[in-house]
Amino acid sequence: MREARAEVVLRAIGRVRSDASTVPRHWSVSDVEGALVVEPEYEGGLAGIEAGQKIVVLFHFHKSPDFSPGLLQQTPPGGAGPRGVFTICSPRRPNPIGLSVLDVLGVEGNVVRVRGLDMFDGTPILDIKPHITG
Amino acid sequence: MREARAEVVLRAIGRVRSDASTVPRHWSVSDVEGALVVEPEYEGGLAGIEAGQKIVVLFHFHKSPDFSPGLLQQTPPGGAGPRGVFTICSPRRPNPIGLSVLDVLGVEGNVVRVRGLDMFDGTPILDIKPHITG
Repeated sequence: MREARAEVVLRAIGRVRSDASTVPRHWSVSDVEGALVVEPEYEGGLAGIEAGQKIVVLFHFHKSPDFSPGLLQQTPPGGAGPRGVFTICSPRRPNPIGLSVLDVLGVEGNVVRVRGLDMFDGTPILDIKPHITG
Repeated sequence: MREARAEVVLRAIGRVRSDASTVPRHWSVSDVEGALVVEPEYEGGLAGIEAGQKIVVLFHFHKSPDFSPGLLQQTPPGGAGPRGVFTICSPRRPNPIGLSVLDVLGVEGNVVRVRGLDMFDGTPILDIKPHITG
């Protein structure tokens, strides 16, 4: 018997804060600075994050339109032709989760100052993970 | 005014399939082979994934117990002492999303054969992304 498609309900652990009115399309080409402000109840989970580290941030593409079958293949900006959505970083994907690798500038209380933002001010943060290159 | 904590509802795009009865605790030390089987409706999104590539897989830690404040700091296996949950890969985290970097062995239809699994058979897959090292 086929298993049902699992539904997963998440809640933001905080928000991105930034003064930037525009952001680069990808963290790998971004120098934008800002902050990850986590809910006070999660402050203890930041223990050990230090300036100079890289961290992985998962976030909600909260401004993206709903996914539709016509978006299964998309041509990225500057791209030569359509590519499978699972091979590109488009925010228009079946589950609108983004992943950015950011440089930590410092941590004070429930605020992580970062560089490399490609998210808008107000973006809901879902998780912060160590950056492991394997 | 404080913004409400955003709720995000996701649905699995597929499932991990593996014959392994146990898995290593992290992809970086895993040679376990298996498959990512995506729902047929998403097969077109795999176009461009090829053997020899690395991919990032986001998945649901569907067997993890609910998070509680006592888990904000945890001592990893073999670790020297408690660390903030956002600095470790524990499956017991505020939003139970896992991230693994896997080696692609091949793609046939809606099935991606992979090596490096640290997920159980049946794990719901939430997203597949390109592996970008910046």
